[in-house]
Amino acid sequence: MTTVSTQTGGRVRRQNHGPESLLQVAVQEFLTRGYDATSMEDLSRAAGITKSSFYHHFSGKEALLRAALERALNGLFAILDSEGARTGTPVERLRHIVREQVKVLVAELPYVTVLLRVRGNTESERWALERRREYDARVAALVREAVEAGELREDIEPALAARLLSGLVNSVVEWARPDRDPGTLPDAVARAVFEGILPARR
Amino acid sequence: MTTVSTQTGGRVRRQNHGPESLLQVAVQEFLTRGYDATSMEDLSRAAGITKSSFYHHFSGKEALLRAALERALNGLFAILDSEGARTGTPVERLRHIVREQVKVLVAELPYVTVLLRVRGNTESERWALERRREYDARVAALVREAVEAGELREDIEPALAARLLSGLVNSVVEWARPDRDPGTLPDAVARAVFEGILPARR
Repeated sequence: MTTVSTQTGGRVRRQNHGPESLLQVAVQEFLTRGYDATSMEDLSRAAGITKSSFYHHFSGKEALLRAALERALNGLFAILDSEGARTGTPVERLRHIVREQVKVLVAELPYVTVLLRVRGNTESERWALERRREYDARVAALVREAVEAGELREDIEPALAARLLSGLVNSVVEWARPDRDPGTLPDAVARAVFEGILPARR
Repeated sequence: MTTVSTQTGGRVRRQNHGPESLLQVAVQEFLTRGYDATSMEDLSRAAGITKSSFYHHFSGKEALLRAALERALNGLFAILDSEGARTGTPVERLRHIVREQVKVLVAELPYVTVLLRVRGNTESERWALERRREYDARVAALVREAVEAGELREDIEPALAARLLSGLVNSVVEWARPDRDPGTLPDAVARAVFEGILPARR
């Protein structure tokens, strides 16, 4: 824990930061400025601590990015290991994954947003892209299984469907707000995936 | 047209650039490095011309960004003005818009990708976000019309559906390749919107 007192307009502002809260500050800066445009100076200023205090917890901004990406990816991969993703028909498992993925996106919003903006400019970014591809490939395999099991319409092209699925679910980070979004969001997204975003009146 | 000869390993490399090709180079750099991390030096180097030649066509990188965003937005707004978006039932108009939007995304891929990555850090970015909101609001109004006309299932929440619609369609830029994607993509995306990405076998 790093404690720093800063004099701001006569008031003493104390900033207490552990690694987790520094990560939170850093991710917010990455999202606002873009990772490449963010310096350790920017991060120290945003956290209200000295650069050397920051370096006490993280070796640099790449380490912060890596920690943020790990947090997002751990949340996502935990879904694939959960009971509901391993049992039931392929469609039941896909429905479970979609719902849980929406929950993780909302719960870990800033971390997942950083993950989804990664373009592969650094070692950690390339690692994260590889892990994302791995995740998407596992979901795509399940879509293929569902088509082969005859659960889905036979004109569904599994590779395209998997891409659209990933795109639709991940797009939630663009507007979701953890404090505002209703608990019904996971089911609403699942319904959009399986029945359409704009289904005709029956 | 700016012509520059550069001596590269004994070979003379001539670079001929008009505004359009400079814009193309700049957009590629913005996408690779991120806009904030791209300097006019980077752009001149990528174009193989001097900085002053670059400034002959564009007042700076903000002007390049603005031109890229205008190109993407003009493509999108042209859809809303087209015949098919103004006539027919709300659902027919929405189907037309979805299909045409996919076409514009693929045809103007790098420009739309820049648009969709805009976060509002500069004047041009804030202008573009405003225009995007305007576009999305017009589509959202049409979704509401479709629900009110009884064309869509009555449990559809128009605001949420409009967000998911925008998210799904725009996600195409993440993987589309103009030279590779089949002409069937617009219909496939429209089907995903109206019938589901993973519709059950009937």
